[in-house]
Amino acid sequence: MPHIKLGNDLPGIRSLFEYRRETARPLNELVEVLLRGPSTLTRGDRELIAAYVSWLNNCTYCTSIHAAFAAAQLPSGITLVDQVRADPDSAPIDAKLRALLGIAAAVQQGGKNVSDQDVAAAREAGADDREIHDTVLIAAAFCMYNRYVDGLATSLPDDTAWYATAAVDIVKDGYVARFAKSAQTAPAPQQ
Amino acid sequence: MPHIKLGNDLPGIRSLFEYRRETARPLNELVEVLLRGPSTLTRGDRELIAAYVSWLNNCTYCTSIHAAFAAAQLPSGITLVDQVRADPDSAPIDAKLRALLGIAAAVQQGGKNVSDQDVAAAREAGADDREIHDTVLIAAAFCMYNRYVDGLATSLPDDTAWYATAAVDIVKDGYVARFAKSAQTAPAPQQ
Repeated sequence: MPHIKLGNDLPGIRSLFEYRRETARPLNELVEVLLRGPSTLTRGDRELIAAYVSWLNNCTYCTSIHAAFAAAQLPSGITLVDQVRADPDSAPIDAKLRALLGIAAAVQQGGKNVSDQDVAAAREAGADDREIHDTVLIAAAFCMYNRYVDGLATSLPDDTAWYATAAVDIVKDGYVARFAKSAQTAPAPQQ
Repeated sequence: MPHIKLGNDLPGIRSLFEYRRETARPLNELVEVLLRGPSTLTRGDRELIAAYVSWLNNCTYCTSIHAAFAAAQLPSGITLVDQVRADPDSAPIDAKLRALLGIAAAVQQGGKNVSDQDVAAAREAGADDREIHDTVLIAAAFCMYNRYVDGLATSLPDDTAWYATAAVDIVKDGYVARFAKSAQTAPAPQQ
């Protein structure tokens, strides 16, 4: 049960987006740029980084939903997401993504945990400055989203099929459009 | 030395804002709503929560700058900020702010660390749902900003007097206006 009265029955961060739309707007804009904006990293790979960090942070809602978003946008689907969560070192991904996941794992522990060696390894595997920057910020941002979702003890969906349904909308329209659309259908946020 | 070429010599998160303005925009909008938008918590108290979480995350730049922003907006100035960092339990603050700092410290450890007891204590001390919500999100957001700043190994200012000078602008105009203004004076962001 959530720690505060949210005035809606939505799961996870969506309940918080409806509760406080002033903060929801930049939170959606940030994740849109990071996970769907122009990038040399695929949307599937970026969602995979988000799911992996959420899993390291033990956030069930964020892990499940970003795993679904990754699976919907990766050629090898949920199998690859599960392999990465089980062991990124042996998962069938390329060396660059493996090195970027290493940087993301360091960020999850703390910003100062990212070493010169981590960055050199990513560069050696072909990552450029922008890819390293975005990986650090994706990992940092999910250390925020995960804490926000669990710190207020938001609910999980009743049916795990909900995650795959949510993925259809996100893959089609993105985070910002889905958020704008929710204003027309959700109960008024509690003041 | 920063892990990537940022194309400017600004300190801390400001170097990252200039490097990648697409992500800087929502990052500034979020902190503006949380630390300066309409709230029953004072701007000084909210900056104090931000400085305290940054200190728990061992982020020198964010601790120093938000301590300066708090000091500039609290009647008792930097002395109170130092007392809170040394020991929030004995610092001369009211029971509500003390309880909210307790929630912020739990969030810093992890979202699931916020207990029913933490929330009940804040409510008992007079905190309402919106204040509890905003405290959780401020703490979560600084777990992001701190990791972003340190994860890319950004520089510190050459002179610590820089923080107090920065505070003058923020107290007067806020984060979003300062960011918009920087576009006119900073070197072009690196693509």
